[in-house]
Amino acid sequence: MLTTISDLQNTVTTRSDRRSMALAVAQDPQALDAAYKATKAGYINAILIGDKPQILQIAQQKAYDLSGFDIIHEEDTNWAVEKAVRLVSQGKASILMKGNVSTGTLLRAVLNKDWGLRAGALLSHIALFELPGYHKLLGLTDVAMNVNPSLVEKVQIINNAVSFLHRLGIKNPKVAPLCAVETISEKMPPTLDAAILTQMNRRGQITGCIVDGPLAFDNAISFHSAKHKGIVSEVAGDADLLLFPNIEAGNAVYKALAAFGNGQLAAVIVGASAPIVLTSRSDSEQAKLNSILLAAAAS
Amino acid sequence: MLTTISDLQNTVTTRSDRRSMALAVAQDPQALDAAYKATKAGYINAILIGDKPQILQIAQQKAYDLSGFDIIHEEDTNWAVEKAVRLVSQGKASILMKGNVSTGTLLRAVLNKDWGLRAGALLSHIALFELPGYHKLLGLTDVAMNVNPSLVEKVQIINNAVSFLHRLGIKNPKVAPLCAVETISEKMPPTLDAAILTQMNRRGQITGCIVDGPLAFDNAISFHSAKHKGIVSEVAGDADLLLFPNIEAGNAVYKALAAFGNGQLAAVIVGASAPIVLTSRSDSEQAKLNSILLAAAAS
Repeated sequence: MLTTISDLQNTVTTRSDRRSMALAVAQDPQALDAAYKATKAGYINAILIGDKPQILQIAQQKAYDLSGFDIIHEEDTNWAVEKAVRLVSQGKASILMKGNVSTGTLLRAVLNKDWGLRAGALLSHIALFELPGYHKLLGLTDVAMNVNPSLVEKVQIINNAVSFLHRLGIKNPKVAPLCAVETISEKMPPTLDAAILTQMNRRGQITGCIVDGPLAFDNAISFHSAKHKGIVSEVAGDADLLLFPNIEAGNAVYKALAAFGNGQLAAVIVGASAPIVLTSRSDSEQAKLNSILLAAAAS
Repeated sequence: MLTTISDLQNTVTTRSDRRSMALAVAQDPQALDAAYKATKAGYINAILIGDKPQILQIAQQKAYDLSGFDIIHEEDTNWAVEKAVRLVSQGKASILMKGNVSTGTLLRAVLNKDWGLRAGALLSHIALFELPGYHKLLGLTDVAMNVNPSLVEKVQIINNAVSFLHRLGIKNPKVAPLCAVETISEKMPPTLDAAILTQMNRRGQITGCIVDGPLAFDNAISFHSAKHKGIVSEVAGDADLLLFPNIEAGNAVYKALAAFGNGQLAAVIVGASAPIVLTSRSDSEQAKLNSILLAAAAS
């Protein structure tokens, strides 16, 4: 069972071969920093695609030794992104990371029909938290990409996350469609979707996981709370993955746990043929490094 | 500035007179426990309205000394609720607490036009957190009552909370309408309401506070995150109150902070002519006691 982010470290560093990561538009101090440290830590080999003089300048300022790093010079942002994506679609890298380029530009390239990384129907975001007080890693989806997912999109978001968790070795993850309450009420549409998703799982329309909802946050993560409410559920108190009904809920919980949870976090974009590391400036250095580690562990 | 729940304790215990609290349908082991302890701690004087033999039986089992407690015998639940509410509307008690009665029954009595506690247009829930890592008490509203508030209801929820925070001595609270992002996007309707609420505040249509949104959770509570994003706002990084766009977001953040925030919390229902303590079985004993303390401090 995965209980800490450090468990991922063991997975990755004991492998015989290291995964390669293509950093698109690498002249970005923070992304380069994370890619450099992840390479030095033995998590990955970074391939830096971008403006080589600018990359070397950043490296010099930070006293990085980039000898041994693969640097592909490309001044133009769009070309640099395409080259990075093509490295992944050609199997020369197994992780894509965003550098000094907008998320929109990067994801448009990922979704390119000819040379992109399109796999399923939808890209989505998954975050994993290691929290003191919880007995295993806790996944959150989708806290950053899909705003107000429909039922069909929720199925795709679950599928993306479950397939990713399988790659980490979590065989039959327990998925909690999260709501404000654990009972079904027509006044709260997310509770209807939660019930439907649960039954779709029972009917074999969502596989590789156990879905049981609606659950409120406390029921999902605490056996004690679930018992208090008399909830009989394999998922309650033991969730591997929380499915949020809307981005406002997911994003606020993600940031609340990041700020006050006193733990560790990692996050990637899933649903493409390779994991995508897409950190934001407000993420901590540790979170960026963890996210590369997470992508490496799943690829 | 209020930075801890203990600050409320000083407010309450240094007063010359204690507030009275009417516990409706008091034959409830958990509510009675909290009311008993709050009385013994000097926060309030509890008036117990309900089935006296049952109340005394619980007291005996728990070895409480109820001598000196005002007990009003009323076997019938609806009558007991009405008597408790009337004590408050007649000024004989200044706090109402829910005992062994459903929330619906209690609130229907509160909203009774003849003898209820109706004040504003809407009842709402406010929670206050003391969190290691935040420099003052952090208010959350509404995480438990209003499901998907309209713009007008959001104004009422802000007004209820602001009026309550004023009573605690927080003179001009900083209110953050919380969204997943800090920029306005038509694809995310809560960001539109957040912008509108901000401008209503500037036009004097929402008073006694500073409203500035949309803000994401991290921008609202961290100067560092706000600065990173280049947000110029009096509220960013210094919020007293987070206004949630929907109950799924509020409820999940509330429970995430309760489970993993390593802090203290208190919560009451506001918008009636007196604060209402309405704890649930899943709240910790400390949270129940804190909630009575909070109600006492504001009344």
